[in-house]
Amino acid sequence: MVSPVQTATRPTRTVSAYAAVSPTDPLVATTIERRSVGAKDVLIEIAYVGICHSDIHTVRGDWGPVQYPLTVGHEIVGVVSEIGADVTQHQVGDRVGVGCLVNSCRECANCRAGAEQYCLNGNTATYGAVDRDGTITQGGYSTHIVVVEDFVLSVPQSIPYEAAAPLLCAGITTYSPLAHWNAGPGKKVAVIGMGGLGHMAVKISHAMGAETTVLSHSLSKQEDGLRFGADYYYATSDPATFETLANTFDLIINTVSAKIDVDAYLMLLGLDGTMVNIGAPTEVLPVQVYTLCSNRRSFAGTGIGSIRETQDMLDFCAEHSIAPEIELIAADAINDAYERVLASDVRYRFVIDTATLPAI
Amino acid sequence: MVSPVQTATRPTRTVSAYAAVSPTDPLVATTIERRSVGAKDVLIEIAYVGICHSDIHTVRGDWGPVQYPLTVGHEIVGVVSEIGADVTQHQVGDRVGVGCLVNSCRECANCRAGAEQYCLNGNTATYGAVDRDGTITQGGYSTHIVVVEDFVLSVPQSIPYEAAAPLLCAGITTYSPLAHWNAGPGKKVAVIGMGGLGHMAVKISHAMGAETTVLSHSLSKQEDGLRFGADYYYATSDPATFETLANTFDLIINTVSAKIDVDAYLMLLGLDGTMVNIGAPTEVLPVQVYTLCSNRRSFAGTGIGSIRETQDMLDFCAEHSIAPEIELIAADAINDAYERVLASDVRYRFVIDTATLPAI
Repeated sequence: MVSPVQTATRPTRTVSAYAAVSPTDPLVATTIERRSVGAKDVLIEIAYVGICHSDIHTVRGDWGPVQYPLTVGHEIVGVVSEIGADVTQHQVGDRVGVGCLVNSCRECANCRAGAEQYCLNGNTATYGAVDRDGTITQGGYSTHIVVVEDFVLSVPQSIPYEAAAPLLCAGITTYSPLAHWNAGPGKKVAVIGMGGLGHMAVKISHAMGAETTVLSHSLSKQEDGLRFGADYYYATSDPATFETLANTFDLIINTVSAKIDVDAYLMLLGLDGTMVNIGAPTEVLPVQVYTLCSNRRSFAGTGIGSIRETQDMLDFCAEHSIAPEIELIAADAINDAYERVLASDVRYRFVIDTATLPAI
Repeated sequence: MVSPVQTATRPTRTVSAYAAVSPTDPLVATTIERRSVGAKDVLIEIAYVGICHSDIHTVRGDWGPVQYPLTVGHEIVGVVSEIGADVTQHQVGDRVGVGCLVNSCRECANCRAGAEQYCLNGNTATYGAVDRDGTITQGGYSTHIVVVEDFVLSVPQSIPYEAAAPLLCAGITTYSPLAHWNAGPGKKVAVIGMGGLGHMAVKISHAMGAETTVLSHSLSKQEDGLRFGADYYYATSDPATFETLANTFDLIINTVSAKIDVDAYLMLLGLDGTMVNIGAPTEVLPVQVYTLCSNRRSFAGTGIGSIRETQDMLDFCAEHSIAPEIELIAADAINDAYERVLASDVRYRFVIDTATLPAI
């Protein structure tokens, strides 16, 4: 199952997009090239695309050097407008989604195990990665994208169209560890942070049937948290929280990428509990191993989820009527939105209406 | 199920022992008091007691202040010589063992879950702990010990008597994580370190059917490792080891309590792999969370094992003819043995013949 190799000599399609041109300049309206539709490819007319904190980290070079101009965006929903001759999984007119991955090697042990997000040869990220044709992948802040069909998800009609976009990253990134560590009835789950990821973790954990607690810096979003399904809400700025909740949780999902006091949170895990980081700070985190050895605790990490899990997540969200809380914006508000994301001033995810991208 | 409270006013029994009198002085021959046998107690005539690295850390104050004089030793085998009126699990003449625990609260969630080693109210360690009668528990470098029957193990006759002692700590400490994380056929297990703990981990992992690899600083013990059942043996002083074995293991048992490069070892875990520390360095260990997030890895810790697991381990070792490699010494060689343990000059565990303790 290898996707057709695209070559630079094939005709391409020029589409409208927003792109970063340097680590410091605002994003600008521009055009980018999409490859022609190969035999196993799907052309998607993008309707909505979410703004993920990762987009900002990437364009600003926080995670390493970037080849500019770069169009980011990996929370993509739209409609199939063209399919290649050998496409079998999607049809023109289907509502589909694309997340953080657009390909993987398909041959390594992890790909064969259905965990292509952990492809040992390096998966192909939706933006900023070297694609098989040698070009740099360009993300969803644009009107169209071409993706090999195996990495295209089916988005159930019952999920509100514009709210579906953040499921493709924030949704799967929180669903995957909750599902993997069996969040459900009888389990006590804590979610650290109530941002774009955290609010999805709360909704999904609650829908899975777990007793769900939010651990947020303050109580400012408590009302929202309880409305999203949290059973309890604690401020981590209050030292008493750490005494009250010692040895309590089966699973802690840490949605905060900043450096935290790992040991203080590990102490909240009960017997055989696991704390899972779904984002990684750039600094190393000091761990007191004795904290792990008492209560047989684990400190783990995950990265997004597999394509199969992503489809499971979309179907789960449709079944349980779960959708992110979003603020819909026009393309020319992207730069302002970035500043608001950095200031934690969004409840809870910005979604760009791609109909507002300049016509070309 | 609460053990009878012993009071200081009951008659006690004076027995021969070796004790530490300060963090720096050699251990000396002395006598200690044992409580009289309560209704649920077992009096054990100790035959052999292992020297664990923890004994040395404890008497030298590495893990905190100690009330001297203190008799250590928590790898104890002997024969039941007296039982209390309500004892049902052991009889006079039985070959029995005592490990690192002599009691727990029996009421907390962990005790009720059969994980009394993680007693939330603090288990009662075999030495250096405050017992229910307010006295400080004294360990096995002595001729007799009195223990409540629930914390006394049955030692199968087929395990060589003197070699059985180290199973009560080194055996269970390695068996517990191997069993908990399902070491067995089809699993790839690595053991870091080939000392008292490591050599037991190799024997047990092999007997469980796992493909077993030793990761030792040098190849000096390679012949032994392969004889104990290792399939592969690598020197961690060779950087190529870390390239060769990247993404390989399902489970890594780290028997080394010193500060190691955690990330370098975590990188050796394959998809969903877990590295378990069975000892804790006093320093914090820096962890690069990204290493956990790739391959969905876990970093975990354990402490010894439950009483039930300890009995399972003894039965497993009897069934698979597993015993530690020991060097039997007389009591007056304890201080020399301590120096040799610190110099890693023991293959692989010292065991004291308590018949050599001075008569009183």
